[in-house]
Amino acid sequence: MTFLLAELAARVGGEVQGDGALRVERVAPLETAGPADLSFFSNPRYREAFEASRAGAVVLEPGAAAPAGRTVLRVKNAYLAFARISTLFHPPREPVPEIAPQAAVHPSAHVHPSAQVMPFACVGPGAEVGARSILFPGVVLGAEARVGEDCVLYANVNVRERCVVGSRCVLQPGVVIGADGFGFAFDPVGEDGSGPRHYKVPQAGNAVVEDDVELGANSCVDRATLGSTVVGRGSKIDNLVQIAHNVQVGPLSILCAQVGISGSTKLGQGVVLAGQVGLAGHLQVGDRATLLAQSGVMNDIPAGETWGGYPARPQRRWMREEALLRRLDELSRRVKALEKAAGPAAEETEKT
Amino acid sequence: MTFLLAELAARVGGEVQGDGALRVERVAPLETAGPADLSFFSNPRYREAFEASRAGAVVLEPGAAAPAGRTVLRVKNAYLAFARISTLFHPPREPVPEIAPQAAVHPSAHVHPSAQVMPFACVGPGAEVGARSILFPGVVLGAEARVGEDCVLYANVNVRERCVVGSRCVLQPGVVIGADGFGFAFDPVGEDGSGPRHYKVPQAGNAVVEDDVELGANSCVDRATLGSTVVGRGSKIDNLVQIAHNVQVGPLSILCAQVGISGSTKLGQGVVLAGQVGLAGHLQVGDRATLLAQSGVMNDIPAGETWGGYPARPQRRWMREEALLRRLDELSRRVKALEKAAGPAAEETEKT
Amino acid sequence: MTFLLAELAARVGGEVQGDGALRVERVAPLETAGPADLSFFSNPRYREAFEASRAGAVVLEPGAAAPAGRTVLRVKNAYLAFARISTLFHPPREPVPEIAPQAAVHPSAHVHPSAQVMPFACVGPGAEVGARSILFPGVVLGAEARVGEDCVLYANVNVRERCVVGSRCVLQPGVVIGADGFGFAFDPVGEDGSGPRHYKVPQAGNAVVEDDVELGANSCVDRATLGSTVVGRGSKIDNLVQIAHNVQVGPLSILCAQVGISGSTKLGQGVVLAGQVGLAGHLQVGDRATLLAQSGVMNDIPAGETWGGYPARPQRRWMREEALLRRLDELSRRVKALEKAAGPAAEETEKT
Repeated sequence: MTFLLAELAARVGGEVQGDGALRVERVAPLETAGPADLSFFSNPRYREAFEASRAGAVVLEPGAAAPAGRTVLRVKNAYLAFARISTLFHPPREPVPEIAPQAAVHPSAHVHPSAQVMPFACVGPGAEVGARSILFPGVVLGAEARVGEDCVLYANVNVRERCVVGSRCVLQPGVVIGADGFGFAFDPVGEDGSGPRHYKVPQAGNAVVEDDVELGANSCVDRATLGSTVVGRGSKIDNLVQIAHNVQVGPLSILCAQVGISGSTKLGQGVVLAGQVGLAGHLQVGDRATLLAQSGVMNDIPAGETWGGYPARPQRRWMREEALLRRLDELSRRVKALEKAAGPAAEETEKT
Repeated sequence: MTFLLAELAARVGGEVQGDGALRVERVAPLETAGPADLSFFSNPRYREAFEASRAGAVVLEPGAAAPAGRTVLRVKNAYLAFARISTLFHPPREPVPEIAPQAAVHPSAHVHPSAQVMPFACVGPGAEVGARSILFPGVVLGAEARVGEDCVLYANVNVRERCVVGSRCVLQPGVVIGADGFGFAFDPVGEDGSGPRHYKVPQAGNAVVEDDVELGANSCVDRATLGSTVVGRGSKIDNLVQIAHNVQVGPLSILCAQVGISGSTKLGQGVVLAGQVGLAGHLQVGDRATLLAQSGVMNDIPAGETWGGYPARPQRRWMREEALLRRLDELSRRVKALEKAAGPAAEETEKT
Repeated sequence: MTFLLAELAARVGGEVQGDGALRVERVAPLETAGPADLSFFSNPRYREAFEASRAGAVVLEPGAAAPAGRTVLRVKNAYLAFARISTLFHPPREPVPEIAPQAAVHPSAHVHPSAQVMPFACVGPGAEVGARSILFPGVVLGAEARVGEDCVLYANVNVRERCVVGSRCVLQPGVVIGADGFGFAFDPVGEDGSGPRHYKVPQAGNAVVEDDVELGANSCVDRATLGSTVVGRGSKIDNLVQIAHNVQVGPLSILCAQVGISGSTKLGQGVVLAGQVGLAGHLQVGDRATLLAQSGVMNDIPAGETWGGYPARPQRRWMREEALLRRLDELSRRVKALEKAAGPAAEETEKT
């Protein structure tokens, strides 16, 4: 499948400067692109690679500088445009409607005839798989689990009993939906007097993943103690993320790798959590709030604010405190100088 | 299954104030509970929800304030009591004694006739599964692995060769018991002179999970280099936790999500590690010690103490240092003022 | 299998002091070793255990002190020597050449006749498995995935389509190679005007794991957006590690548990990342650089340097700043004393 550059420009509402008749065969990174390839430039760190690139054409923002004579496709929101073009070259996988003979589908399960169930996938009693969804090998759907339409569940994904996955969701390999939440009540004597123990609180709720959500490899969304843990519509979650019981992740949020959210915390819409962020339980994070990488959150976060550090605080305050920390050495020397100048009087005062 | 409220109160040793004849049909969260539901209140954050709740009755501590006219079940250790009542409504899963025809059980394995082995579970040579234990699809028990009685191993759990899981354990989906510990000896030349390499130290020990342990989704307990890695009786471990080779986790400990414990570290009894805590190797953590969220531990921790921060230090000290940090801006201004007051003398001294 | 101590010493180029005719039956830890066991001592924390040990012989460095009368095997790089001896007692698993009847191997796949494919492993169309490699139950190789010679892929490992694993690699249970990188372009209006969304950027590249790499349980190496994510030859990676799209890990690097590396970051050769380290995207980490545990890296790291803290800075600077922090309380008191000595003049200045 190939496209004329001008045709690609028209599809994304952009403008060609240079050879619009270029036949584009692939999209490729700046470093490895050849004369029939379309590439993408935006991050100034890669300007050198851009200038040295042998790419036939490069997608970039209207205002970005480009070497003379280079064919470019200029378009607003160039990254989005490049992503759309890349999708033309790499269309999403189509299901091959079939239940593999080595799959185990319970007689009471409902698998849509257009769906695909690969070998060693297991669909439990009363479970449902919607139209055109694909279950890779080793996927396990528990009893009465429901998966919507046009989903892809990669290898060894597990959706436990009564949990719900919406439509157009992508669950990367090893995702676990609906494991028991981490809830134990300390029992100092034991029901039978056998000594202290942690008594398991039944995790009787479920987990709901709404439409258009993506979950990264080996990420976990626990089922609620009662009610539902919810990952909101259109949210995107990276690998190895932990979402505890009764958490609510608002729609269109972005959770980067290794984030951990403790029980009952609620995220608003469009929240961004950078890598390895941790949130305590029972918090509220407002709409469009951002938490910087590795921050540790122990307070509610107001809408629209950016916080960082540990314990997390507003970014500006955190930055100023960090800057002061960097100058602590100097401050210490200045105090010493003052003490010297003040003479023994100050030192004596210090001792009292 | 329904219960009279008075009957539930009797079972947990509590007292009804209000309508003991209420027929309870479900347990439910405060927000969604209806007139036939029993709910639970303890965290003051949810007082508003408590007061607005339509729940037929609410479990709470003897001393907690409640709106007039509301039916309540008062009981000491209300959370434990509520958990016990919830268990009546949500009894643990009973095994359906069966080895699914699509399971692979080695002829030399011993599966108790009351156990359940679901499709695509694999029980290796010489492995043992105790009475009433349940293996979900995709569970893999290595050669001579042993699982005790009344265990639940959810989908895609792997217990590698010669590892041991006690009785009444719950292993959430994707748990890995007995992966090789991370041990390599640097070889600057290579056995055959082929250049530097990391030589793999055989991980010849095993991992032992004692009775009544729960492990969260995708958590890992590595096998020992020699001897055993041990998770002690009654400990509860959340999702995505890493327990390295030769670690000893004492009984009744609580490890929250994404905790990481490095090799050979020993935890006492009843230790609590909050989320994302990291411990260096070869440390000792005393009985009932607590590590606050995200702390990074590089020292032994005395019994009964609470430490936090990075590097971890006693909570009180950490809190005081954090408070001083918050006032560093002010301190800096005060030093400037002193310098101004002291005049050029101090500044000159500073330069020397 | 047993060995004379003198024979073991000869194999590793060491020297016996004491009874070279000792017949060694096992290797064992100092605490549990008996008279027919060989043990190992190096970490001074365990000197007491060394002195109390009943081990028949102990491997240690040439210069290390040992109690009189104890049989020792002295050798340079004692840990490496002990590892080699341990390998004699615990040789790596040999494959049993066979494709289990319950495995699913696509007719177009190429599995070397000396390889072993266990039950419920799935080898996709066009995939390749090299000589003597072992696929445990639940392993899934996607279409055209390639695994080299002498590899071990433990239970439930997934190598997605078109990804490559070299020779002599060990993939612990649950490893995911080639999940989609985390790339989304924000679309404020939606292609059909249906509202804001995160548009999925096709992750059309692959992931390449070079020869002699080990990856720990449930670790993830994402496929590249375009091009390849690469884990270099001989690198060793612990459990629950996240390697994002287009990352390059240089050869012979060591990544400890729960490390996270963001997209497009490049690590040189022999880099060491301690536990729970996080790196931002698009960074360069020089050869032989070391990042201390839990550090958060937002800058390029020069070759050979050791950095720590958050945000990460050179170890020496970080240590000094931490030491200053510990004395902030004292500094604060000293400023107070100076203010007292200076009298009202200073305080008035402060107010302006």
